[in-house]
Amino acid sequence: MSKGRLLIVSGPSGSGKDTILKKAFERLDGVKFSISTITRPMRPGEVEGEKYNFVSVECFEEMIKKGQLLEYNNYIGNYYGTPKAPVEKVIKEGGEIIVEVDVNGHRNIKNMIDSAVSIFIMPPSFEVLKQRLSGRGTDPDEVINKRMESALAEIACAKEYDYIVVNDNLEEAVDDFINIVKSDRLCIERQNYLVDEVLKKC
Amino acid sequence: MSKGRLLIVSGPSGSGKDTILKKAFERLDGVKFSISTITRPMRPGEVEGEKYNFVSVECFEEMIKKGQLLEYNNYIGNYYGTPKAPVEKVIKEGGEIIVEVDVNGHRNIKNMIDSAVSIFIMPPSFEVLKQRLSGRGTDPDEVINKRMESALAEIACAKEYDYIVVNDNLEEAVDDFINIVKSDRLCIERQNYLVDEVLKKC
Repeated sequence: MSKGRLLIVSGPSGSGKDTILKKAFERLDGVKFSISTITRPMRPGEVEGEKYNFVSVECFEEMIKKGQLLEYNNYIGNYYGTPKAPVEKVIKEGGEIIVEVDVNGHRNIKNMIDSAVSIFIMPPSFEVLKQRLSGRGTDPDEVINKRMESALAEIACAKEYDYIVVNDNLEEAVDDFINIVKSDRLCIERQNYLVDEVLKKC
Repeated sequence: MSKGRLLIVSGPSGSGKDTILKKAFERLDGVKFSISTITRPMRPGEVEGEKYNFVSVECFEEMIKKGQLLEYNNYIGNYYGTPKAPVEKVIKEGGEIIVEVDVNGHRNIKNMIDSAVSIFIMPPSFEVLKQRLSGRGTDPDEVINKRMESALAEIACAKEYDYIVVNDNLEEAVDDFINIVKSDRLCIERQNYLVDEVLKKC
């Protein structure tokens, strides 16, 4: 049976990452999304187990101690983490699971699972990024500059990834993303069992 | 500018390699084929410079001495080789060039250009391979067995390649081949210049 794959996806605000993932997900069979475990209160409209698992701080800290998280961080007093078990299950079963994290999360996960394949979604240029982050032009310059700074700090880490998808034209970016997932299924690490199957008949 | 790529393609008789390459070539922009240099006499219908460059044995041996070949072999008194210069030119210009060689040629080229990406085209099963190599069923068993032996010896080396494309359904195999070429264009080695371009505007 084919080995599965953990796919790590990152991209700054303004990269269109969420839209690409949503559209790619509709066209890719058998790909799962990792559900993050978080400690912040549930917001209106959110459903337990849909995008997040909501747990108490005590419960989260127990998960950390037991080594049940692939990566986690604490942002303004709330924990965010990626549980390890569902990822290991999908890899064992030969499927693919997508984990959406920032550049630090990417580093931490790569350290634990070095077979993970990572994709960085990028805006096509500095100018387009600025335009996208300016919103409707009603935000003060200071706010826009802070967003730009944060996005550029993430882009500065893009070379640590295996692939870069540039989101200039949305449909092309979705095709690119899907191509990466599909061609990864053909790599030797995931297909060497086929060689054995043909040869064992000799 | 993007770095180019040398793509090495192998596959035994019965894999459908030539048909896949022909169909993929029609749908891929900017991909070149390496033209082999050979010393056997030209056959009727062959055109100099189309699939082969025809040279004398003296000329070929001079090319060997000058290190102008990526790989070569001698089969029943005739030399066959892959010239180095066109491959280096395409890589420098950011394009892709396909070299079609056997498993020994693959090993030799990988030793010289370790950034080369290699694809092995494979029949889906032992039974299908036997069926394809049996032709119209008029060949003696001995001939068919020799063909099988040679094909299986090549398949035994398939794990040395980066990717495997299984040719069960021809159209799917062509899609798979094209996916590999296109997703390789998105890998970080070939796209890191994009990151620099966005960041240099800061």
